[in-house]
Amino acid sequence: MSTHPVRIGIIGSGAIGGFYGLMLARAGFDVHFLLRSEYAAVAERGLTVESRVHGSLNLPVQAYADAADLPPCDWLLVGAKATSNAELAPLLVQTAAPGAKVLLLQNGLGMEELLRPALRDDMHLLGGLCFICVHREGPGTVRHQALGAVNLGYHSGPAADAGQAIVEEGAELFHRAGIDSQAMPDLALARWQKLVWNVPYNGLSVLLGASTSALMGDPDSRASIEALMAEVVEGARACGHEVGDGYAAHLLRVTEQMPDYWPSMYHDHVQQRPLELQAIYAEPLARARAIGCVLPRMQALYQALAFIDRRNRAAE
Amino acid sequence: MSTHPVRIGIIGSGAIGGFYGLMLARAGFDVHFLLRSEYAAVAERGLTVESRVHGSLNLPVQAYADAADLPPCDWLLVGAKATSNAELAPLLVQTAAPGAKVLLLQNGLGMEELLRPALRDDMHLLGGLCFICVHREGPGTVRHQALGAVNLGYHSGPAADAGQAIVEEGAELFHRAGIDSQAMPDLALARWQKLVWNVPYNGLSVLLGASTSALMGDPDSRASIEALMAEVVEGARACGHEVGDGYAAHLLRVTEQMPDYWPSMYHDHVQQRPLELQAIYAEPLARARAIGCVLPRMQALYQALAFIDRRNRAAE
Repeated sequence: MSTHPVRIGIIGSGAIGGFYGLMLARAGFDVHFLLRSEYAAVAERGLTVESRVHGSLNLPVQAYADAADLPPCDWLLVGAKATSNAELAPLLVQTAAPGAKVLLLQNGLGMEELLRPALRDDMHLLGGLCFICVHREGPGTVRHQALGAVNLGYHSGPAADAGQAIVEEGAELFHRAGIDSQAMPDLALARWQKLVWNVPYNGLSVLLGASTSALMGDPDSRASIEALMAEVVEGARACGHEVGDGYAAHLLRVTEQMPDYWPSMYHDHVQQRPLELQAIYAEPLARARAIGCVLPRMQALYQALAFIDRRNRAAE
Repeated sequence: MSTHPVRIGIIGSGAIGGFYGLMLARAGFDVHFLLRSEYAAVAERGLTVESRVHGSLNLPVQAYADAADLPPCDWLLVGAKATSNAELAPLLVQTAAPGAKVLLLQNGLGMEELLRPALRDDMHLLGGLCFICVHREGPGTVRHQALGAVNLGYHSGPAADAGQAIVEEGAELFHRAGIDSQAMPDLALARWQKLVWNVPYNGLSVLLGASTSALMGDPDSRASIEALMAEVVEGARACGHEVGDGYAAHLLRVTEQMPDYWPSMYHDHVQQRPLELQAIYAEPLARARAIGCVLPRMQALYQALAFIDRRNRAAE
């Protein structure tokens, strides 16, 4: 093992990078934040997490505006939107220590496949699914409402054992920061499982302008959520990923127990940022369709969101 | 045949009743308008149709605030929303001459079945489908953008010949007012055909806040329209109504040639009136499902609209 303490780079701040980065820094890891629009605020006032679980945290952090200034990192956590991965690739290569592990904390499918060719052969690539209610409140400030677990899986790289030891090393980092984390033997399955939540709630929050409580409290939107979940499970199975029978029901219960929550796609929409439609809708739909599995409700939702996203950005 | 000139009652003004009533009055028919909120404006200033086809028309009309004041009518044209049929039934019975013909100028399915038991046995009941771009501009003023045809079919009543002579009599009324009109041998088929237009355009205009040009101009919303049309055709056929192969393509072409248009459901939504979801979505879906035909996109659209409608009216 390396003799220096584990050095972690957080690429792309926002709610996910800010929350997990600050929790890891608080736990004593050597954490470095590469920031863009938030650099000035964070350099001046540090990072703040207002958490209903962990209380109010504020720490000065090692913040950078330029990737060239970061020291080589052992772990690189990518919390940026999947829509910006193409421009992040060179920064990841630049800031990666030899044998570094890149962890994409993003929802959806296909991001690892797109990013892999831009990385070095010595770099490990992992995916992470965050089960957390968190959003960016303002420059350098993240509001954490509930949950927090990160499930990790290995995508590709030089690991001899299919990466399981590295995935467990990643889970251990989170455990030492007080965060629930599971090493998943099958990243593709983990990604499809997360889609069972993201597909209905992210999309319907934008389409209907409604938060989780409103969507769960109305009989018609709730029926829509359940039907979309069933389609995602069907798509996963068609693609060879066996999501369990009770998984959708489990997510419905978890969501009922959460505080009222506006999914990240809703915030992206309101702030006229591009929606993560490719990773969360188009790619899963394309994979299912390629083997003859049509998911009509998910397709209809995707088309409606594509219309909304296009108009929203044309209005910029 | 009767010796007095044909006397026509228009029950429920709004865009449809106002337009056709005024066209019939202009053609010399004895037309009587039963009005509610618009009575004062129409009694004072008459009815106005601003038409891109027929020019600007304004006529003083025979207007009534109370059904008891109307003379017995040979034809009763119902242009009110399908959502108000239950309260209209007694007014129809009250204003119907012996052997009167009631014509429901409404979209969707199931209205005749609901209304029939409330009518007298001597009354004929017909349905009419209006292919017209028209909306209410203000009290007593209707804006007519394009088209105008009315397709009629017989539902029920004392006609010996399954009503075909009566349907043709109705079509002839419209012809004499300069309006294209077809006597349809099969009202149920005609109603399903009209749904091929109403299901996609009405619902998506509310869901996406978009008019026909925007919906047709975006590749994703256009694909959604086409898929919804295909589902309605599938539902019609499952229910035994053979909508032709080229019918959806025909409606797409007609819509492309129309001026930009906001469907009536969009106006209902903006003005916080109840949406005609039962007739246009719930009833067709239930009829298809009763014989094992599931229409997932139409069901998803219906559930989204039901959520929106419920919230819209709760906000009143």
